[in-house]
Amino acid sequence: MADQKKMVAEITSMDEDFTQWYTDVCMKAELVSYSQLKGFMVIKPAGYALWEGIQQHLDARFKATGVQNVYMPMLIPESLLKKEGELVNGFAPEVAWVTQGGTEPLTERLCVRPTSETLFSDFFKDDVHSWRDLPRVYNQWCSVVRWEKETRPFLRSREFLWQEGHTIHATKEEAEARTQQMLNVYADFLAEDLAIPTIKGQKTEKEKFAGAEATYTIEALMHDGRALQSGTSHFFGQKFAEAYDITFTDKNNTLQYVWQTSWGMTTRVIGAMIMVHGDNRGLVIPPRIAPTEVIIIPVQQRKAGVLEKAYELRDRLVESGMRVKVDDTDKSPGYKFAECEMRGVPLRVEIGPRDIEAGKCVLVRRDTLEKEECALENLSARVEELLAAIQGDMYTKAKKHMEAHTYVAHNAEEFRKTFEEKTGFVKAMWCGDRACEDKIKELYGVTSRCIPYEQEKVADTCVCCGRPATKMVIWGKAY
Amino acid sequence: MADQKKMVAEITSMDEDFTQWYTDVCMKAELVSYSQLKGFMVIKPAGYALWEGIQQHLDARFKATGVQNVYMPMLIPESLLKKEGELVNGFAPEVAWVTQGGTEPLTERLCVRPTSETLFSDFFKDDVHSWRDLPRVYNQWCSVVRWEKETRPFLRSREFLWQEGHTIHATKEEAEARTQQMLNVYADFLAEDLAIPTIKGQKTEKEKFAGAEATYTIEALMHDGRALQSGTSHFFGQKFAEAYDITFTDKNNTLQYVWQTSWGMTTRVIGAMIMVHGDNRGLVIPPRIAPTEVIIIPVQQRKAGVLEKAYELRDRLVESGMRVKVDDTDKSPGYKFAECEMRGVPLRVEIGPRDIEAGKCVLVRRDTLEKEECALENLSARVEELLAAIQGDMYTKAKKHMEAHTYVAHNAEEFRKTFEEKTGFVKAMWCGDRACEDKIKELYGVTSRCIPYEQEKVADTCVCCGRPATKMVIWGKAY
Repeated sequence: MADQKKMVAEITSMDEDFTQWYTDVCMKAELVSYSQLKGFMVIKPAGYALWEGIQQHLDARFKATGVQNVYMPMLIPESLLKKEGELVNGFAPEVAWVTQGGTEPLTERLCVRPTSETLFSDFFKDDVHSWRDLPRVYNQWCSVVRWEKETRPFLRSREFLWQEGHTIHATKEEAEARTQQMLNVYADFLAEDLAIPTIKGQKTEKEKFAGAEATYTIEALMHDGRALQSGTSHFFGQKFAEAYDITFTDKNNTLQYVWQTSWGMTTRVIGAMIMVHGDNRGLVIPPRIAPTEVIIIPVQQRKAGVLEKAYELRDRLVESGMRVKVDDTDKSPGYKFAECEMRGVPLRVEIGPRDIEAGKCVLVRRDTLEKEECALENLSARVEELLAAIQGDMYTKAKKHMEAHTYVAHNAEEFRKTFEEKTGFVKAMWCGDRACEDKIKELYGVTSRCIPYEQEKVADTCVCCGRPATKMVIWGKAY
Repeated sequence: MADQKKMVAEITSMDEDFTQWYTDVCMKAELVSYSQLKGFMVIKPAGYALWEGIQQHLDARFKATGVQNVYMPMLIPESLLKKEGELVNGFAPEVAWVTQGGTEPLTERLCVRPTSETLFSDFFKDDVHSWRDLPRVYNQWCSVVRWEKETRPFLRSREFLWQEGHTIHATKEEAEARTQQMLNVYADFLAEDLAIPTIKGQKTEKEKFAGAEATYTIEALMHDGRALQSGTSHFFGQKFAEAYDITFTDKNNTLQYVWQTSWGMTTRVIGAMIMVHGDNRGLVIPPRIAPTEVIIIPVQQRKAGVLEKAYELRDRLVESGMRVKVDDTDKSPGYKFAECEMRGVPLRVEIGPRDIEAGKCVLVRRDTLEKEECALENLSARVEELLAAIQGDMYTKAKKHMEAHTYVAHNAEEFRKTFEEKTGFVKAMWCGDRACEDKIKELYGVTSRCIPYEQEKVADTCVCCGRPATKMVIWGKAY
C-alpha cells in the first residue's frame, strides 16, 4: 500500500512550477517512464492507450478523405537522403546512423528515418506513370528518430511515434487543396476529439519545414501560456519531384512532374492534451479519447450486493456503448478517488450500500469536480449527457483560456511590455523580413507561431522595425 | 490501359513454379514493392490493409485476455543487450548497429531492436516491486530489424512488422499457463480469422528461441507442402529475471525472481495466407480479414440506372455491416473481374441493365469461382450466407490439404522415401538426440517443425538412429 500511496501523492502545483507539474503528471499518471537510453522513453499502458485513441480517431478521419495506409523501410541510404539538399541540411545534424549490419560494416551508411519524404519520393518515382495513377494519398504510422539535445516526455524525445502522410497530385491546385484539407482534419480532430482549440496559419520562411515551399500549422496554447505546434501540413511544389524524378504523362501525353504534400501529427499532442486540460489533481482526459470514460467505485464493497450492483451498472453502461470499468481492487475508496482523478477518467460513479437502498448513486465530473446524485434508473441517460457536456465544456474552457491569453501589441513598446508581463499569443504586425523575426527572438525569446488565416490589421507598421507591414503574425514562447 | 492490363496479366502457374507464383502474386496483387535498400520492402496499400485487418482481430483477442499495449525504444545499448548471453549469441550476428547520433559518434553502440526481451526486462526491473504489481501482461506493435542474408516478401526481410508480447508472473504455473494461452490465441486466430489450420507443439532444443527454456509453435502447411512457422510463444523461466535482476517481494515478504514469457506473430502470416489460399488467378482472402468483402462490378455502366443501382446495392450491404466497394472506374468489366480475382476479394456482384430489369444480379465466389443468380430483394441475406460459407469452406479445404499432405514414416526407409517423393508434414519417432536432428537435416533438408501436443506412437524407434524413441516429431521443409 505504501507504494500505491506514493502514486497519488501530491504533485507539484502547476502555479508553482508548471514544468515540474507536467513531469509529475506524466510519471504519476503512469503515462511514461524514462529508459536507460537518454532521450528515449517507455510509453506505459495508460500513455499508449491515449495514443491508441488518437490513432483510431485520426485514422478514421484520414480514411474518410481517401487516405490509404502503407509502410516504408525505417532505414534510408545516405545517398537517397541527400538527393534533396534542403531536407538533408535540415535533418542531417540530428539523425542516427547505422554503419554495421550483421557482422559486416556497411558500404553505405543508413540513417534511421527522421521523416520519410525521401523514401516516399523514391517509391513514387517507379510507382507512377500516367495521370490515371494520380493522386496517391498515402500515410504511415511509425516511429522516427531525431537526435535532439534536450528531451521531455511526449514533447521532445529522440524517438517518437507519429503518422506521416505523403501525397502526389497531377496539379498544383489539387496538391494545395490537399494540404489545406489535412490541416483542417487536424484542427477538427483537436477541437472535436481532444477538445483543444487551435489557430490555423502559415509558417514564416524561417519556421517552415526543411524542403517545403509552404508549411501550414495549427498552434495550441497551453495552460501556462506557451504555444505548442500541434500538427503541420506541407506543400512541396515540385521540389522533390525534380530531385527524385517523379514524373507522369498527363492527358495530353506530356511528361510532367507531380505536385507533392506531406503532413504529420505526433505523440506531442498527448503533451498538448495534458497541458491544456490537466489540473492540480492530475490528468483530465476528454471523454472521446478516454480509454475509460466512466469508472465505477464501490463504497464498502465487502457488504453484500455492492460489487454485484457495481458490475450490473457497468454492464448497463457498456451496453449503451460506453467504455466503463469497475475499480474492485482492495484499495480504500478515498485512494481510488484520488487515483482516478490523477488518471483523468472523465466521470466517476460512487455507489455504496446506502445508495443502493435509496436507488441512487453519486456522479463526479473530473473536469469540474462537481458532484450530483442520480437515480439508478436514469443512469445511462444521465451519464451520456454528462460525457457530452464534459467534452463540450472542456473545449469551451480551453477556448476561453486561449482567448484570455491572446494579446494585441500595436507597437514595439506594447510588444515588449506584453512579453515582459504575460505569456500567451501576441498578435502583432510584421514587415515580412527575417531579420525582424531573428531580432524578436533574440530580444524576447519568442518565435512567430504562424501568420494566421484570420488576419486582422492591428497596426500599419512592423512591431520590430517600424516599417510598413501588412501581415499580422501570432507570436509566442513555444515548447 | 496498357499499364493496367499488365497488372492482371497471367501469373506463373503455381504448379509450374510455386516460388515464382508467390512473387508474382505479391507483386501483381500490389501487396509489396522492393525498395532501393536490399532486403527492405515497401508494404503497399493492399498489403498494409491486410496487416491492419490482422492487427485489429489479433489485438482484440489479446485485450480479451487482459493484454495492455505499450511502446519501448527501438534502440538497445550494447551493454543492455549483452546481459543475457544466449539471446545475444542468437541475435548478435544479425543486428544493425547505430554508431553515430547527430554529429557525434556514440560512446556505446546501439542496436536496432531485433526483439525486445532485453528492453522489457530492463523496464520491469524498476517497475515491479511487490506481488501486487504482478502479473504484467504487455504487448507492443512495432517493426524490428534482423540482417538476414536471403529475403523474400513477407516471409523473410531485414525489417518486418510484428507484435511482441512480454509478460512477467509471480509463479511458474501462471507463466506457463500464459505461454499456452497465447499459443491458443494464435491458433484460434489463424483458424477462425485466416482460415488456416495449424499444428500446435513444442520446438526441440535445437529449434527453440535463443534464451528460452521452451518454445511453443503453431505450424501451418503451405499449398506446396512446405511448412511455415506462424506464431511462437516462449517460456523463459527465470533466466532474464536473474540476468536483469527482476525481483518482487511475495506474500510472505520474501524476495523472488519473476517468471517470464514472450510471444510474437509477424507479417509472415500474410505470406501464409497467400500460400495456403491463393490460386492461379491470384490471392484469395478470407472474408473475416478482407479489407473489401464484396465488390460490385457494374456491367454496361454507362447505361442509365446501372451505376445508381450499383451504389444502391452497396449502401444496402454496407448497412448490413459489410465492407463493400463499387468498381466504377472506366476499365472493362472483364478487366475488373480479373483484377478483383487477382486481389482476392471474397465475393463479387455483377449487375447490368438486363439483370436490373429481371430484378436480379450474379454472385461469384472467389474461392470456388462458382456463379449463382440472386434476386435483388434477397441480396443482403444471401451475401451474408455466402461470406460465412466462404470462410468456413476455405478452412475446410485447407484442413483437408494439410491432412492429405501429412504422412507417417514408421522407419528410416519410409522416412527417406517420403521425403524423396513428397513434400508435406511427416510424422516420425525421434529419440530426443540432437545428433539425429542434425543428420536428418543434412540428409533430407528437413527440420523438426515441432513435437506436437497430439502425440501418436507411430513406432518404437527413432527414424534416424533406430534407438528407442518415445516422442513423435513433425518433420518438414520449412520456409
